Amino acid sequence: MPNQLHPFDSIQDYEITLAAKLIKDGYNPADNVHFVLIDRLEPPKRDTLKYLEAEKAGKPLPEVPRTAYAYFYTKQKHLHKALVNLTYKHVITTTTLPHGTVGPLLPEDVIECESWCMEHPLVQAEVEKLQLPPGYVVRTDPWMYGTDSEHEDRFLIQYYMYLVGSNGHEESNHYSLPLKFAPVFEAFTKKFVRIDFLPGGVDEKVTATLPWKEVLPVEYHYKLHGEKPRDLKPLLYVQPEGVSYEIEGSKVKWQGWEFRVSSNNREGMVIYDASFKGRSVLYRLSLSEMTVPYGDPRVPFHRKQAFDLGDCGFGSSANSLALGCDCLGVIKYLDCLRCDGEGNPVLIPSTICMHEQDDGLLYKHVNYRTFDSTQARRREFVLQTIATVANYEYILNIVFDQIGQISIKAKATGILSTMPIDEGLDVPWGTNVGPGVMAAYHQHLLSFRIDPAVDGHNNTVVYDDAVPMAIDPVLNPYGIGFVSERTVVEKAGYIEQSPFTNRAVKIINESVINPTTRKPVAYKIDTSARQMMIAHPTSFNSRRAKYATQQMWVVPYKDNQLWAAGEFTNQSQTDTGLAEWVKGEAPVRNTDLVVFATMSLTHLPRAEDFPVMPTDNLPEINIIPYGFFEKNPGLDVPQSDNKGKNSMYYEESKKQSTAQNSDCCKKASL
Amino acid sequence: MPNQLHPFDSIQDYEITLAAKLIKDGYNPADNVHFVLIDRLEPPKRDTLKYLEAEKAGKPLPEVPRTAYAYFYTKQKHLHKALVNLTYKHVITTTTLPHGTVGPLLPEDVIECESWCMEHPLVQAEVEKLQLPPGYVVRTDPWMYGTDSEHEDRFLIQYYMYLVGSNGHEESNHYSLPLKFAPVFEAFTKKFVRIDFLPGGVDEKVTATLPWKEVLPVEYHYKLHGEKPRDLKPLLYVQPEGVSYEIEGSKVKWQGWEFRVSSNNREGMVIYDASFKGRSVLYRLSLSEMTVPYGDPRVPFHRKQAFDLGDCGFGSSANSLALGCDCLGVIKYLDCLRCDGEGNPVLIPSTICMHEQDDGLLYKHVNYRTFDSTQARRREFVLQTIATVANYEYILNIVFDQIGQISIKAKATGILSTMPIDEGLDVPWGTNVGPGVMAAYHQHLLSFRIDPAVDGHNNTVVYDDAVPMAIDPVLNPYGIGFVSERTVVEKAGYIEQSPFTNRAVKIINESVINPTTRKPVAYKIDTSARQMMIAHPTSFNSRRAKYATQQMWVVPYKDNQLWAAGEFTNQSQTDTGLAEWVKGEAPVRNTDLVVFATMSLTHLPRAEDFPVMPTDNLPEINIIPYGFFEKNPGLDVPQSDNKGKNSMYYEESKKQSTAQNSDCCKKASL
Repeated sequence: MPNQLHPFDSIQDYEITLAAKLIKDGYNPADNVHFVLIDRLEPPKRDTLKYLEAEKAGKPLPEVPRTAYAYFYTKQKHLHKALVNLTYKHVITTTTLPHGTVGPLLPEDVIECESWCMEHPLVQAEVEKLQLPPGYVVRTDPWMYGTDSEHEDRFLIQYYMYLVGSNGHEESNHYSLPLKFAPVFEAFTKKFVRIDFLPGGVDEKVTATLPWKEVLPVEYHYKLHGEKPRDLKPLLYVQPEGVSYEIEGSKVKWQGWEFRVSSNNREGMVIYDASFKGRSVLYRLSLSEMTVPYGDPRVPFHRKQAFDLGDCGFGSSANSLALGCDCLGVIKYLDCLRCDGEGNPVLIPSTICMHEQDDGLLYKHVNYRTFDSTQARRREFVLQTIATVANYEYILNIVFDQIGQISIKAKATGILSTMPIDEGLDVPWGTNVGPGVMAAYHQHLLSFRIDPAVDGHNNTVVYDDAVPMAIDPVLNPYGIGFVSERTVVEKAGYIEQSPFTNRAVKIINESVINPTTRKPVAYKIDTSARQMMIAHPTSFNSRRAKYATQQMWVVPYKDNQLWAAGEFTNQSQTDTGLAEWVKGEAPVRNTDLVVFATMSLTHLPRAEDFPVMPTDNLPEINIIPYGFFEKNPGLDVPQSDNKGKNSMYYEESKKQSTAQNSDCCKKASL
Repeated sequence: MPNQLHPFDSIQDYEITLAAKLIKDGYNPADNVHFVLIDRLEPPKRDTLKYLEAEKAGKPLPEVPRTAYAYFYTKQKHLHKALVNLTYKHVITTTTLPHGTVGPLLPEDVIECESWCMEHPLVQAEVEKLQLPPGYVVRTDPWMYGTDSEHEDRFLIQYYMYLVGSNGHEESNHYSLPLKFAPVFEAFTKKFVRIDFLPGGVDEKVTATLPWKEVLPVEYHYKLHGEKPRDLKPLLYVQPEGVSYEIEGSKVKWQGWEFRVSSNNREGMVIYDASFKGRSVLYRLSLSEMTVPYGDPRVPFHRKQAFDLGDCGFGSSANSLALGCDCLGVIKYLDCLRCDGEGNPVLIPSTICMHEQDDGLLYKHVNYRTFDSTQARRREFVLQTIATVANYEYILNIVFDQIGQISIKAKATGILSTMPIDEGLDVPWGTNVGPGVMAAYHQHLLSFRIDPAVDGHNNTVVYDDAVPMAIDPVLNPYGIGFVSERTVVEKAGYIEQSPFTNRAVKIINESVINPTTRKPVAYKIDTSARQMMIAHPTSFNSRRAKYATQQMWVVPYKDNQLWAAGEFTNQSQTDTGLAEWVKGEAPVRNTDLVVFATMSLTHLPRAEDFPVMPTDNLPEINIIPYGFFEKNPGLDVPQSDNKGKNSMYYEESKKQSTAQNSDCCKKASL
């Protein structure tokens, strides 16, 4: 079986089993091997390129060995990383990671962590002091410990404590009732470290735990919020003749596009080898990292900085998407596989959904002399994955259109991470969202790794600014002229944002000249200007996520440089990703290069974001052909019409439903 | 009949007829009255507010007289403006506008203008010099004359000349074959002024007309482009139980929203008196002006600056939208009425379409302990209008969501305005888009007028910046804190863009405090930072559209201050709108105020934008409740599910279509 897999196919269940077995074979049972991750290792690009070439030419396919990487603990203490050759069934290397390196946690480890904490006598003693009225129980959310010391080398967990109202209902919104103490434990060893107390006033001051004064929770669950549902008529997406896409294994074909898609634990979903109308556009595209730093300055809230890929994994935290709920239409689902602590495969079904949708008009022109209208509707192909990272949900869409464009769209939803606030107060770094509950300002910074292949792998990044021409009595006598000025990015580094010159970052291929424009073919990486990481440059927040201090970066391609903040982000001291890769300012012109682009959302919560937050759009990243084609590549998209009867008049619909209703009445009166 | 109309209802056909009759009664036939516009005049706000109050209270409705305004020419020369009381059937005033004031043109006037030009012997003589091969004919696009002199007081028209290839086919893309001479005529008097010659090289130099060297046009029309249509399966929007909206006359009710919508000649569509869940949000919302300045510095291209509302009218240029083509689902259409030169009503059917659509998730949260998922889909109500302004199309959507948000979305499509370019050359202010054809850089600047009523009419505009806190050993020891700093806009003027402090402009009501947040209730006016007007501040382009030099403006409300660049934009010397209204810096705090927000698109054409341009999104303007509600107002939106069977699995769909296909085969083989 393994040799039938494509190098870009996701890890298989038997591959996880095999990797776990080979690794465990090297240890004694007393070593207590506990896996936290087993996944496919990205094959070296030079190997896959040979494979892809042979595949395109219909020649015999070279072997690209399947390789897994695994993180595991031994003796509840030491973190190791192993590489396993799955094709030849042997462990390639095992490395014990430097003391202080902290790996991700499995979902079931997190749940288990909750139990230790809640059962610990010191925690129970603190709960006692609350003198809770009947109908309230305590619940805890474990949090990654952030970083606030160069000398900390334990794997720590911070626990935020909440009350569950509504008679302890399992769906009650505990984020509505935050408590004012937060225990700290060592992970795995379960060692109690201390209890932090949380400020509830307008400054850093804390108090000992006092009896709790009852306030009612703000509930979001339909069983608990007590609101009568609105009347909303169903809206169906129907494709009576089937879909326009074809999917076989990881290979997707749609409207001129061909690409592969696979799932992995860390990035959730990855697009590979995307070409449009036979011309290559991207080698690989994925979410690379996300950090969520909070702006509440007070101890211990300063440690609230999550890395949702490195600490948790966007694939291992992915939702099982449901038909008609997360996605409408005719849907193809893909699964994600992760391991459990023993190294057994765990299936998370339907973590990626794929379908077509309509998005208004693709183009239109009406000839004002004849009133003839030329118009095509814009059909899209969407890949979606949604991850739940404790309180927050992230919705990620990668959208292909019919004319060579790829759009990356992300939305945040879920429940705000909350802090206690004393009655009658408010603070300048957060918003009161309910009685006794405040949501601190924070940011979401999602870095996307764009590994381009614009008509081949040797590409160059440039940026074009729109600048006014000087007034000139001959050439620009009326002072209205403006031109585009190009800057070539020669060395690895970041590109400054410049919205007021309409700065446009482009990936070009200097060897391929577009005969129409007489310029190198290009794809534009288009996004909006945004405030990046606000935290002080010397702060751990910034140092651990240097990638998030600038919007766009360019680096030369290197195998295994996938994750913007580095491989191990949990309790990291520093960004070992982009911060390292740009050192040395390697040349990036006319070479195999990678662009990292970050979506930033400075989120100052509003009352409407609670108890469950309406989806908040992050700025889109659009990958747009810009003089890549010689002309609009969508002239062959069929003209739109109502032949398929996809639409009807309101008045017609009214008559139908009235007719139906009167039929009902007749029957009832008989 | 008239007294049954709501003050916000569009003008009626009999009202146009009446206004024209009353005006013409004041003239002799020899005066040759030629109307260019008859439309409803916005009633004074103090009158409509009394009406709305009575309407809400169910009390007798006060009379708000229906009033029309009209622009017309006499003796092919003098422009007049009349106000007509339609209720009491009399002309209120007639004003002869100052010499040099130029009104808009009717669509049929434009077509007629083409004939004069083409038939003129001097133009024909110039065409002769081209020595056209068989299969080519000449076509002309009249253009507003822009402005380049303080001393020009004639109503002028500039004609850009093109060849029609494809054997003169009426749908052939003449924009692909621009000629190098451009006649100038006086409007109405049809007087020849001169012929301008167009540069085709890299500088301002022009040559006399030479024999034309044949190049083939780049065609966009499906009858001419010669491309085989792709296979694309239909995607239907079906609402088997009818729609969730109700429309009666101009009144729309949907998902807690109530508002009115009407059409007019200049703005296309207007939203009035919008409230959500019984609380007022907006008094009036509309597109106010759009200017399109071009960046080609060379004479005579410097005069390419269109004002698509003031010069043409977004309603009078609106498309008749078609079911299944411009809009999918169950659609309610509204019409627009304009006048002809005689003052007869002309119906433009279906210029506004309204319907529901799905837009992904409204919110979602998965309880990671129980895997229970709470989620609702986001339904939207869309109002759409599309205007064709010669070569370009503009798609305008006003979108209401289920939780109190209004989004304004605009897209540009259609055909680029082109210039000739000599073989083997390119210029720094434009892009070659085909053989011999260049599209100059330009901007689209659309100003929206937002007349708010956030819990009442006395509102205040503020902006909040997210700024880092200073490092402080006690309060901010780790340097990660940030706060929001509020600035109140006290005086009429503009607000500077500041994307790197996440500047958020809000309309607040200082008298209404949100009990959750303890802050005044607010709506945020959210958009992205953009480059505004690039032309030199002293240029006519900037002086005529001062509004377009800044993104956001605040002014006190005054009746009849609707149009951002002033009432008469055609050949205007200066912006008589916002530029005037902000003078004197009137106080705007806690008063009835108006916000103008401009979408800007600096459009550097790409090869893919020709021969017909894929829709290009302008930055959205979102009007978002921000601490207006005490919590998420969408908890009562029904949870999403697949009970209505709105979705199916890809594999299921495949089986169905295979089954259908094999059935077909069976039948065929019988």
